[in-house]
Amino acid sequence: MRILGIDPGYAIVGWGVLDSRPGAFELKGFGAILTEADLPFPKRLAIIAADMEELLDKYQPDCLAIEKLYFNTNTTTAIDVAQARGVIVAACAGRNIPVSEYTPSQVKQSVVGYGKAEKAQVMEMVRKLLKLEKVPRPDDTADALALAITHSHVATGAVFSAGLKERKGI
Amino acid sequence: MRILGIDPGYAIVGWGVLDSRPGAFELKGFGAILTEADLPFPKRLAIIAADMEELLDKYQPDCLAIEKLYFNTNTTTAIDVAQARGVIVAACAGRNIPVSEYTPSQVKQSVVGYGKAEKAQVMEMVRKLLKLEKVPRPDDTADALALAITHSHVATGAVFSAGLKERKGI
Repeated sequence: MRILGIDPGYAIVGWGVLDSRPGAFELKGFGAILTEADLPFPKRLAIIAADMEELLDKYQPDCLAIEKLYFNTNTTTAIDVAQARGVIVAACAGRNIPVSEYTPSQVKQSVVGYGKAEKAQVMEMVRKLLKLEKVPRPDDTADALALAITHSHVATGAVFSAGLKERKGI
Repeated sequence: MRILGIDPGYAIVGWGVLDSRPGAFELKGFGAILTEADLPFPKRLAIIAADMEELLDKYQPDCLAIEKLYFNTNTTTAIDVAQARGVIVAACAGRNIPVSEYTPSQVKQSVVGYGKAEKAQVMEMVRKLLKLEKVPRPDDTADALALAITHSHVATGAVFSAGLKERKGI
């Protein structure tokens, strides 16, 4: 099963693709779609739409794992992130690619084993699980890979015990 | 100048197309994209994306006028409307169709002549200005036409005095 993980945004869309096999991941690619701040917002959405088509053409994922949006104090940003997210989700659904969404807390629980884990712990677990030398940059890309890993765990029903060490102290 | 007006939503996307000429409108078409509530949300976005392409192919508008999103108390709905709006805006920007956004108050000011006009007054002015027998249904479609009229007024710099009668009483 090939999973595309996406951390949605309008300035940076983190993405990562991995093949999930029992007990193993094979990392196929990762990166970020970047849109320039001085472009009109509709143009930034169009760039995201075009780059999504390119990503889907190249990697042909079986499913999308994307962060569930929640409201924070900056509602203007939230609306614009939601608009970008709509573009991403529509691109996948238009190709009948099923979309699964996870909250940050679900991702932490799945990747680290503790729903209130620190961001750095999630990043480090992503690095370990994907056997990378360094944590992928920007953070949005690492977050996207964490989402893909989470979906793999959920979809395969894997019991995931890494991170239990971190959990014990709580 | 051919204007596409859109009232964004995920269940109902109201749309209307008009050609704007000095002192006159020619109504080219209006309607609504509907998505069924029992479909998964990503699928509803994909339907909106596909129907937008069809609309743009058919009418070849020069510009899009769309409602600016603002936050109300129902933030979950707002996030989903924003996602649908992103799909609509990206479809237009992907074809280099310029996007203009207006608040409900700007639409009321432009169509009725008073920023706090009642919804029914806006609907009735849409009907009059477009020489229709009845107010278009659903309301989302009439709202979309009001947005297109607003953009026409702004783009042509038209001084719009209809609605002054309603205004006098205030």
